[in-house]
Amino acid sequence: MSAGAIIVWELLGTAVLILLGNGVVANHVLRKNNGHNAGTLFITFGWAFGVFAGASIAAPTGAHLNPAVTLGLAISGKTAWADVPFYFIGEFAGAILGAVLCWLTYKLQFDDHPEPGETLGIFSTAPQIRNKAWNLVTEIIGTFVLVGWVLLSPVFENGEDGVPSFGNSGLGYAGVSFVVLVIGISLGGPTGYAINPARDLGPRIAYAFLLPIKGKRDADWGYAWVPVVGPLLGGAVAALVYLAVHNLS
Amino acid sequence: MSAGAIIVWELLGTAVLILLGNGVVANHVLRKNNGHNAGTLFITFGWAFGVFAGASIAAPTGAHLNPAVTLGLAISGKTAWADVPFYFIGEFAGAILGAVLCWLTYKLQFDDHPEPGETLGIFSTAPQIRNKAWNLVTEIIGTFVLVGWVLLSPVFENGEDGVPSFGNSGLGYAGVSFVVLVIGISLGGPTGYAINPARDLGPRIAYAFLLPIKGKRDADWGYAWVPVVGPLLGGAVAALVYLAVHNLS
Amino acid sequence: MSAGAIIVWELLGTAVLILLGNGVVANHVLRKNNGHNAGTLFITFGWAFGVFAGASIAAPTGAHLNPAVTLGLAISGKTAWADVPFYFIGEFAGAILGAVLCWLTYKLQFDDHPEPGETLGIFSTAPQIRNKAWNLVTEIIGTFVLVGWVLLSPVFENGEDGVPSFGNSGLGYAGVSFVVLVIGISLGGPTGYAINPARDLGPRIAYAFLLPIKGKRDADWGYAWVPVVGPLLGGAVAALVYLAVHNLS
Amino acid sequence: MSAGAIIVWELLGTAVLILLGNGVVANHVLRKNNGHNAGTLFITFGWAFGVFAGASIAAPTGAHLNPAVTLGLAISGKTAWADVPFYFIGEFAGAILGAVLCWLTYKLQFDDHPEPGETLGIFSTAPQIRNKAWNLVTEIIGTFVLVGWVLLSPVFENGEDGVPSFGNSGLGYAGVSFVVLVIGISLGGPTGYAINPARDLGPRIAYAFLLPIKGKRDADWGYAWVPVVGPLLGGAVAALVYLAVHNLS
Repeated sequence: MSAGAIIVWELLGTAVLILLGNGVVANHVLRKNNGHNAGTLFITFGWAFGVFAGASIAAPTGAHLNPAVTLGLAISGKTAWADVPFYFIGEFAGAILGAVLCWLTYKLQFDDHPEPGETLGIFSTAPQIRNKAWNLVTEIIGTFVLVGWVLLSPVFENGEDGVPSFGNSGLGYAGVSFVVLVIGISLGGPTGYAINPARDLGPRIAYAFLLPIKGKRDADWGYAWVPVVGPLLGGAVAALVYLAVHNLS
Repeated sequence: MSAGAIIVWELLGTAVLILLGNGVVANHVLRKNNGHNAGTLFITFGWAFGVFAGASIAAPTGAHLNPAVTLGLAISGKTAWADVPFYFIGEFAGAILGAVLCWLTYKLQFDDHPEPGETLGIFSTAPQIRNKAWNLVTEIIGTFVLVGWVLLSPVFENGEDGVPSFGNSGLGYAGVSFVVLVIGISLGGPTGYAINPARDLGPRIAYAFLLPIKGKRDADWGYAWVPVVGPLLGGAVAALVYLAVHNLS
Repeated sequence: MSAGAIIVWELLGTAVLILLGNGVVANHVLRKNNGHNAGTLFITFGWAFGVFAGASIAAPTGAHLNPAVTLGLAISGKTAWADVPFYFIGEFAGAILGAVLCWLTYKLQFDDHPEPGETLGIFSTAPQIRNKAWNLVTEIIGTFVLVGWVLLSPVFENGEDGVPSFGNSGLGYAGVSFVVLVIGISLGGPTGYAINPARDLGPRIAYAFLLPIKGKRDADWGYAWVPVVGPLLGGAVAALVYLAVHNLS
Repeated sequence: MSAGAIIVWELLGTAVLILLGNGVVANHVLRKNNGHNAGTLFITFGWAFGVFAGASIAAPTGAHLNPAVTLGLAISGKTAWADVPFYFIGEFAGAILGAVLCWLTYKLQFDDHPEPGETLGIFSTAPQIRNKAWNLVTEIIGTFVLVGWVLLSPVFENGEDGVPSFGNSGLGYAGVSFVVLVIGISLGGPTGYAINPARDLGPRIAYAFLLPIKGKRDADWGYAWVPVVGPLLGGAVAALVYLAVHNLS
């Protein structure tokens, strides 16, 4: 798999994921939407099946869509370290593009929203109770479940061209979308389950620097490192557990 | 596959899709229904699994059910241009038939509804904020995700008789129904995600010209071109992206 | 497949289906339940995945669980007419058993309910607007979708011992449960989607003659034929459509 | 499969199950959570897909995660009695670990909750109406459906190394998660569907003896035997039914 192919597929898949994930929050938050205030189950379904759609598209490169997944796969020996930078480029660029597409989809609603200062939450996560150490713990545990599942689930195997893939079972990428669904439902309460550095930082960059959003405020940079570092640590811990147990029988 | 077979299978599948899709909106909108005001997640599930049911039935012809899908498949070389008119005939005729069946199912509720002028929304989409240019953008992006997924997802391959099919994986047509679910949840806020010219125009024709619905008003013809042109453009853009990237590895 | 095996497997599967289907309504209707007033989507999920559980168990005999399915399969030549009576016996006996198990599960809640006369709706369906001709139309259309999907969906093929089965795809019986989900969501508004004579008449018999339910009233026998005759007609129409179109290519 | 492998895989899988299952209740119950008061369907989805995530991880040992499943498999001859103690150790240890991880995830919310005495329900079940005999009946019936499905469903077969597995179909462990979903929806009203001794007793032990939860009260030991004995009885009855009918054809 060439560097260009990694970047393109991961960019396309992550853009679709973030378009759909940011999209469900926009639908829920902004008034004059069919899904206004449609509830937490609605939001978690949007992110979960956003993963399904984006991952199906990025299948040729194993559908990481997430630097924490890439890191976990690299530590566990399933992705070459030399490919990691190209995965990261595709993931972050895709996340920024997805946020832009979300803004275009909901342009009229953004302009119409009566409290435009509140729209950062459509793009990036924020904790319900701000305490960076414990917020980090929550993000580590959530990402540990995601990357642990990716590595330990029996559906993980080599796909075409030897690219490791967790989408080869009968469920395809529905399996990982079910796991993202339950992480959102069960572990998303305190911090909004970033569990993906690109998912959080990419749209935050788009919000802060690219999008002419009406009435926007600061991008909460003081918190921005938590949903980057936490997921990377969670992915790393999952890889270490994988290395310790995967041959056990 | 003969022209007659294309028309019959697409007609049957699209009729089931529209019966179920219009049906969930009727259940939600009309009073004296078990699903009255059951919410946006309820509506998106109805449309999503309506696609599952209709597409499973129309499997022999690849289950397009949607002129935007047919156009995307034709541009990308997966469906012969000569077959396109027969797909369109089946899709539009099926959509009209499905709307009629929905009206029969909910006949008593239509007659009982206290504000009969509001029932167009059961059949066709309308924007939350009316601005045809931006409404078009929203429909283009939503359909781009649908047709892009159909073309790029690895489950797409030739089925029986060489008919291209995206229902051959273990998930069958559940995959496309998950994508329609998330498009509704994540991108359906502003315009109600027509993402299918037949889904919108067919029932609008049934409403305007065929059904003796109590107290009906005009069919909002001024907006009717948006959910036709937007999806066709979205499908075409998806096909161009597919042609640009699908050999990348 | 012996007559005894047909009866036992269909009885077990239908009992599980009705236990779970009646169970979700009991959870929703009776106070002092975790699922009290949990909503229409909740109820439709209960019935849908009740079908999944029951059908998986009754797989050896093709998992009819429903006289309308049995009739449709017999008309279309997939089930021997000589076996039909044994299917019917298992289906009705299982439905009665399932209703008894539901009552045992919710015994304390039945005793505690402040308006015990309202509990028939846990067992059997009733129309929102009573008009037997149009209620019949609604049941015919709903069952047509179910049996049409069973017959026309490409997942239908011969299973072990030549027993026709629609659970052999990668989705197993999740496919039919998705179809029952969407029928409930999209067509269940007016009559509560019996779409199965055993599902409605079996629990009605249990309610009227077997169960010592506190404060019970009459079993609404005047309506009881509609959810029996409607589904049988819908299944028969689906079989005729199947015979007309299934060889078309 | 070695004793150590059984313990490790079942411990990991059960820990993930209980982290996610206790987690959704924490999200729902504790204020200042994104999922606060998100509803019963939300809770049942959390438990159901918690089973999916945990079972996928524990696939090497057949993904019991539940002493009632282990007992049912042992009685039916599918798991060696000599392995049963190692399964039980892994299941209970994993359940305790999962409860600890849930507490860490929601640490800030536990500390912030205004009525800390109410938090036992996050960890263990309690009946809506307390009557141990009838509560036992409800748990027996719920577990009978779970273990009966595991044993009778056609997806059950030998996996790698001859370990019996119900995750080998195209659905993988989504099948059992659908069954847990419907048990929660349809039979979870009266007692909160423990249907698993480890799921209830493990977190109760963590609550009572390990976790420094703010304002905690007694662990309701008077009821604690019901969600242990009931599920074991339900699993045993399911195994006896399996032995009676599984060769019937």
